[in-house]
Amino acid sequence: MDIPNLRWWGWGTLDRTFPLEGRPRFWPTLRAWLELPEELRERPPVPLEEIDLRPPRLDDPMLASLRRIVGEEGVRTDRRARVEHACGKAYRDLVRVRAGQVPNPPDAIVYPADEGQVAAVLAWAADRDVVVVPFGGGSTVLGAVEPPPGDRPVITLDMARLDRLVAVDRESWTARIQAGATGPEVEAQLGEHGFTLGHFPQSFEFSTLGGWIATRGAGQTSTGYGKIEQMTLAARLVTPVGILEAQEVPAVATGPSLLDVIVGSEGAYGVITEATMRIRPRPQVQDYRGFLFRTLEDGIAALRDLMHRGPRPTIARLSDGPETAASIALAHEHRGLRGLIERGLEGYLARRGYRLGPEGSCFLLLGYDGAVARVARRWRRAEEICRDHGGFPLGRSAGESWKRDRFAHPYLRDTLLGFGVMVDTVETATSWSNLLHLYEEMTTAIRAAIRASEGGPGYVMTHISHIYEEGASLYTTFLGRQASGREVEQWWEVKRAATEAVLSAGGVLSHHHGIGRDHAPWLAQEAGPIGVRILQVLKKALDPAGVMNPGVLGL
Amino acid sequence: MDIPNLRWWGWGTLDRTFPLEGRPRFWPTLRAWLELPEELRERPPVPLEEIDLRPPRLDDPMLASLRRIVGEEGVRTDRRARVEHACGKAYRDLVRVRAGQVPNPPDAIVYPADEGQVAAVLAWAADRDVVVVPFGGGSTVLGAVEPPPGDRPVITLDMARLDRLVAVDRESWTARIQAGATGPEVEAQLGEHGFTLGHFPQSFEFSTLGGWIATRGAGQTSTGYGKIEQMTLAARLVTPVGILEAQEVPAVATGPSLLDVIVGSEGAYGVITEATMRIRPRPQVQDYRGFLFRTLEDGIAALRDLMHRGPRPTIARLSDGPETAASIALAHEHRGLRGLIERGLEGYLARRGYRLGPEGSCFLLLGYDGAVARVARRWRRAEEICRDHGGFPLGRSAGESWKRDRFAHPYLRDTLLGFGVMVDTVETATSWSNLLHLYEEMTTAIRAAIRASEGGPGYVMTHISHIYEEGASLYTTFLGRQASGREVEQWWEVKRAATEAVLSAGGVLSHHHGIGRDHAPWLAQEAGPIGVRILQVLKKALDPAGVMNPGVLGL
Repeated sequence: MDIPNLRWWGWGTLDRTFPLEGRPRFWPTLRAWLELPEELRERPPVPLEEIDLRPPRLDDPMLASLRRIVGEEGVRTDRRARVEHACGKAYRDLVRVRAGQVPNPPDAIVYPADEGQVAAVLAWAADRDVVVVPFGGGSTVLGAVEPPPGDRPVITLDMARLDRLVAVDRESWTARIQAGATGPEVEAQLGEHGFTLGHFPQSFEFSTLGGWIATRGAGQTSTGYGKIEQMTLAARLVTPVGILEAQEVPAVATGPSLLDVIVGSEGAYGVITEATMRIRPRPQVQDYRGFLFRTLEDGIAALRDLMHRGPRPTIARLSDGPETAASIALAHEHRGLRGLIERGLEGYLARRGYRLGPEGSCFLLLGYDGAVARVARRWRRAEEICRDHGGFPLGRSAGESWKRDRFAHPYLRDTLLGFGVMVDTVETATSWSNLLHLYEEMTTAIRAAIRASEGGPGYVMTHISHIYEEGASLYTTFLGRQASGREVEQWWEVKRAATEAVLSAGGVLSHHHGIGRDHAPWLAQEAGPIGVRILQVLKKALDPAGVMNPGVLGL
Repeated sequence: MDIPNLRWWGWGTLDRTFPLEGRPRFWPTLRAWLELPEELRERPPVPLEEIDLRPPRLDDPMLASLRRIVGEEGVRTDRRARVEHACGKAYRDLVRVRAGQVPNPPDAIVYPADEGQVAAVLAWAADRDVVVVPFGGGSTVLGAVEPPPGDRPVITLDMARLDRLVAVDRESWTARIQAGATGPEVEAQLGEHGFTLGHFPQSFEFSTLGGWIATRGAGQTSTGYGKIEQMTLAARLVTPVGILEAQEVPAVATGPSLLDVIVGSEGAYGVITEATMRIRPRPQVQDYRGFLFRTLEDGIAALRDLMHRGPRPTIARLSDGPETAASIALAHEHRGLRGLIERGLEGYLARRGYRLGPEGSCFLLLGYDGAVARVARRWRRAEEICRDHGGFPLGRSAGESWKRDRFAHPYLRDTLLGFGVMVDTVETATSWSNLLHLYEEMTTAIRAAIRASEGGPGYVMTHISHIYEEGASLYTTFLGRQASGREVEQWWEVKRAATEAVLSAGGVLSHHHGIGRDHAPWLAQEAGPIGVRILQVLKKALDPAGVMNPGVLGL
């Protein structure tokens, strides 16, 4: 069910922040990099009650008929619920909601309790020309849950009540799970049977199975457990014209894959209610360690070798020089890379060619999950491969340090926004042979765009993760000074430059965030005219009234 | 280019047969199992020149306009080419063509030399309401290349000239390959660069990359190298309305997968001209060995353990008792399991609970490809797992024996057909927890149907292969006496019973053969009404004139 205490203007819950105590290097370093003013003034979000909210556009008979479907407690129209469901968690969303700009809140939030209620609500909506926005955790960074502008009333379909593990097949390592289950709900219920799904995106604590599948997401351990589409054996999509069901079998040769119409559908064709997922026994150990590489090229060569010749890692995440330097600046005094410096190792490393700083060495987080003996065997060979490429082993403490903060960084974003810092991420993927080219083109374009958009020198940092035999994903974070009063326009300028650089350098429009509304302008370039036509005819066939999440996927 | 000397009435080329010399147990055993008459009379196929062939329905101006697109040598209308392209290689096909029944030959066979010519031919056909049947190796066992009946002229588009390796990316382990390349053409060209695709279906010598992708095929080593859809990174589909191109990146989150509209499309939406495939370095060794398990359950438990806890095999293929017994009956005197018996090991095995015979023990072929040291390491653990489940190691000679005959069995089918034996295969897949149930239901249903269709006692044998963490494929061969004069109807009776048993016992309609025309009657049951609607709207959008391979996928 719903998570109480949500931070409607930012990430997560109101009781948590990213603690900056014990991290004395953070603000001074950031101030220098971004050329921030000496005196930073915090700008708090506009209070909830001061937001100018359009009155709900569903009249009492409409609401009564909805309540007949989902029950009294299944419909909310209160201010808090409407603001919480008015947008996702992109930088662009948070800038607006902090400023009290919520022009298109849903008119009601509906909580179906089962698949039958989902189908009934879609029929209700199609009959009345009411827009339906499916909602999992609302953690989209691409505008995928934001009600579209226009005169049609909008209901948001929050899947929070469909949160159960339906069945576990211990012999076949599969589980049927309802789509509204959040990361912790998935893992807790599978954990009772000794299993894990192994899908841990940064949004893990709030995002849902249905959202992961609808957007083709990837968790931090995707190299070991697979991207969500590789984990998804079967799924059910309730569309306005009926239920589409993919078969629950290991592999099929029955024409074009219907499952792959469901995966990635982003609510444009219907609502995912349930999926059968590949699961694994909970690992005995999760042995995550750190390495330092002299150059990004060395680190990339090690990653490629691990995929080609070594034991496939559960997780691999190689930070470039700037991201490594940022980790050090952000690190807790006595932990991680910071601790290394404190222990006087910096000079020792420097003499061996490892320098720390934005132009310097690159940190690799590498990890193996599994049975103790097997993980030990894999580590022996993995360590050899890392050493072959000049990897300096930093041990398990670096891995533990990363684990501690793995879901915490979005909280830091809220802090930065409060102090006038623009911060967002871009993600893409390409082949090994194109990786450095794409990296350089993208980094250069983003830096130039930040400066051109009055963001100052900016800071751009990247990690390579989600590695494959044929290539890898790039995940880039950029920071700059907010252009006060035109924050959203400024962000669009950078986003546009980044996206165009990605596409022209051979990267994909998205590796795991999806299309939503923000990537839609570029989808035609990616999919081509025939691809767009396919998405359109599917839309017309599955959602003839056009009520399902209009605007996502450009539909 | 085209393979000369094709056996138009059977498998492969005319210069080859399955040699039965040195296999003295074969006919006596088969005679006993199927209750064949003492005296078997061979019925040769009707000679090519005696086949009553409908005259080509394309007039000279039509043919001339085709030749302007593909050149003089790119159009054939001779008897031999038309018969060779009139059907696939299913039992049903061979029975008919051997009897001289070729009611719907194509009116011309067209050989485009590049993608532009493919597009031009499709436009030519759409303008003139001429049906186009895309043709790779023609090895379909589901009627997927058979021209549909009706008044519209039909051209078969043979992709044999598009057989080149276009580009290799050595760093990213990918290769762009034209769709008309046969297995040996793919492997020879990749081999020059030290790579392999690793896709070895039984049809390997004649089938093509485009055919594998169009049908979602699987090779014998799919457990190690992946099913074709897992190997396919990107592909190009020329449709009558334009080219659909999937992106050449490791993974995407850009909406429903367009690649998965191409994969499995069976020529209903267009022609696959090229694909970018995941490739691997040629393995240093291919270490394949045999094991004997007391029961099918023991063998299945070993397979599951290998996928769940052990090193994932490159190939795993567990025969049930009947198939193991058949292998022994078919084996060369001094080789494989036969050699074992000759060496007097039968008694030794029997005392340990391993019996040989239709109700007896089960043979597992298990293999690892790769670098010497890594394969040795994997074998150590794999052997432990096999022994844990009572697997008796038969060594490498059993593996070598299997390798020698791996592509040869379809030749034996031609021999059997000549002597009045019905022989066909059924394949499906399901979860580990449902595997034995499906196996038993299917076997029982096929046995009953053979008897009911005047096929005598029949013989039904199965192997489990293409194993996954969550389940496996079942591949069943059935034999019976031909019901003379009604061979095709008899076969349909058995096929129908087998398919209905598969579907009602939770198996999938096809794991790797596809739908074609023969499975089309059951596709609605598998895909559901919404799934069928999706296939139909894609058809209408991509092939509005309805000229592409009508009938496959039920479209």
